[in-house]
Amino acid sequence: MPKESDLTIDAQTIVNQILPHRLPAQESAEAFAPANIALCKYWGKRNEALKLPLTGSLSVSLGQLGTRMRISLDDRDRLSINGTPQLAESNAYKRLFAFLDLFRVSGTAFRVESHNSIPMAAGLASSASAFAATVNTLNQLYGWDLGDSQRSILSRLGSGSASRSICPGFVEWQAGERPDGMDSTAVALESVWPEFRVGILTLSAAEKPVGSSEGMQRTLETSMLFQSWPNQVAKDLPVIREAVLQKDFKSLGPAAEQNAMAMHATMIAAWPPIIYWQPESVATLRRVHGLRADGVEVFATMDAGPNVKLLFEAKTENDLRQAFPDLKVISPFAD
Amino acid sequence: MPKESDLTIDAQTIVNQILPHRLPAQESAEAFAPANIALCKYWGKRNEALKLPLTGSLSVSLGQLGTRMRISLDDRDRLSINGTPQLAESNAYKRLFAFLDLFRVSGTAFRVESHNSIPMAAGLASSASAFAATVNTLNQLYGWDLGDSQRSILSRLGSGSASRSICPGFVEWQAGERPDGMDSTAVALESVWPEFRVGILTLSAAEKPVGSSEGMQRTLETSMLFQSWPNQVAKDLPVIREAVLQKDFKSLGPAAEQNAMAMHATMIAAWPPIIYWQPESVATLRRVHGLRADGVEVFATMDAGPNVKLLFEAKTENDLRQAFPDLKVISPFAD
Repeated sequence: MPKESDLTIDAQTIVNQILPHRLPAQESAEAFAPANIALCKYWGKRNEALKLPLTGSLSVSLGQLGTRMRISLDDRDRLSINGTPQLAESNAYKRLFAFLDLFRVSGTAFRVESHNSIPMAAGLASSASAFAATVNTLNQLYGWDLGDSQRSILSRLGSGSASRSICPGFVEWQAGERPDGMDSTAVALESVWPEFRVGILTLSAAEKPVGSSEGMQRTLETSMLFQSWPNQVAKDLPVIREAVLQKDFKSLGPAAEQNAMAMHATMIAAWPPIIYWQPESVATLRRVHGLRADGVEVFATMDAGPNVKLLFEAKTENDLRQAFPDLKVISPFAD
Repeated sequence: MPKESDLTIDAQTIVNQILPHRLPAQESAEAFAPANIALCKYWGKRNEALKLPLTGSLSVSLGQLGTRMRISLDDRDRLSINGTPQLAESNAYKRLFAFLDLFRVSGTAFRVESHNSIPMAAGLASSASAFAATVNTLNQLYGWDLGDSQRSILSRLGSGSASRSICPGFVEWQAGERPDGMDSTAVALESVWPEFRVGILTLSAAEKPVGSSEGMQRTLETSMLFQSWPNQVAKDLPVIREAVLQKDFKSLGPAAEQNAMAMHATMIAAWPPIIYWQPESVATLRRVHGLRADGVEVFATMDAGPNVKLLFEAKTENDLRQAFPDLKVISPFAD
């Protein structure tokens, strides 16, 4: 059911408006973009072509975890990920070069070397950092000198949550209202919180049964409870923003966990039900609730997959490493 | 947060309006009421004191599974359940005799012998059949000759879902609109469906962490997604009613499963989250989805607990007994 804006504005139109020129300034360039984890989730698009969200969202970038990319002019398109050449038939290759087609003139070919420092199977989306890194690298290669909001808009055209991978630290993606999405951009929040921690628990490397874009769409179309999701975000986003600005973990944790649970609830209520949870996901959530009952300040968040991520502060790190020996701890503000 | 009706009408007022007299017609009486499983769930009260629901619901009574009760006049109150005497301090004892106090005059004492044919730990509420059996037995003991709707109203004052345990077969509990709930009664649906089956899988005998009344209340107060629950029921109830009347399983199954999933979703989105699911619950739901992908027509429903119940037709019974060797199959229309 395309909306009016889907029919009138496409990604190429937006790119054309933003890019100052299409002449590479150098032979090769390199840039980085961090992965991010949403504390207030992005779930549901108001425009599919431009990946415009129904609501705002808020994330924390994961410091040095993300995608480092080098793009070089070449005689033909090539892509390697972590040193491994990708076939032209692979999804990663097709999706990336379709995105690059928005930016280059006919006849320009790229060698793309992408390195993810995100542990595979950690349940962290690599597409967010990959598309943001692509835009950051093109910005260097072409010498466009684009600002944060312009790079955020361009990254979004590759993957919605990539719009937030433009900045380090806490980032809010403002939903915007314009049909062309020029006001739907990420904004860095002025908050440095060195004690903030994200814990990754790799529960299952199984392929997820439903991709997040399809899950989003099915939820929007079939889940009656999704009608209340914008109200959930309207409640949570200001609380989470203020908690981030005040470094108020007691306020942040519950709001972030409830927001994530409500997102999964909208999917569970879809038809057919979208249950990203595995048995171990439930066991881990119960464990988190048990730790909290014992006075340990830890909260859970989950994205469109089975893995549970923990939110906590530095003072709780030892308790959690004991409770979860496999926990990978990320300090978003390290260095 | 009591509503006006809570403050002005109590259970005793309703009982006084319905009972023709308080003089026992015999020394002892015996009656039965079936357990029931909701296909469209009752979740959320509009009046706590009278247990008036926010929405209608629809269930199937479980044939011979339920509570057989004998009540005899005695010199003091006694309760036995399945032959075991219950202490006056037990919850079952206190709850039952508080209910009986609504009906008897001072000085009347009862010996109550209750027999549940519901397998313990099957995750089937025994309170629904117990309160309905109590009302049915009192109706005999006192010779009141009350009709279905009156017995439904009285049973509801003990436990909401007991209002549906008055009749065999498919039963709809109409929400009603009146503050005194005199129009909030169960109605038998004219549908005999001998091929209809309910399968019970006992996943966990663990005590559930949150009682269903408390869970209902917490969901109502803290779950933003619960705002959409009445819309879910408004969508599902007519579909399920029509499917029952037409014996249309292809229409019944999806609506019943989505309704149950949506109910759990409203709880998962509460704060703190109410997760009745155990890891095995998720494993079983995934198994059901897998069977369906293989062409087996089976759907799941769950109440406020971890157990998964299967809905299917006789022709699918063998497939499901193979898939779930521990499956207990109930034929609601047997005999």
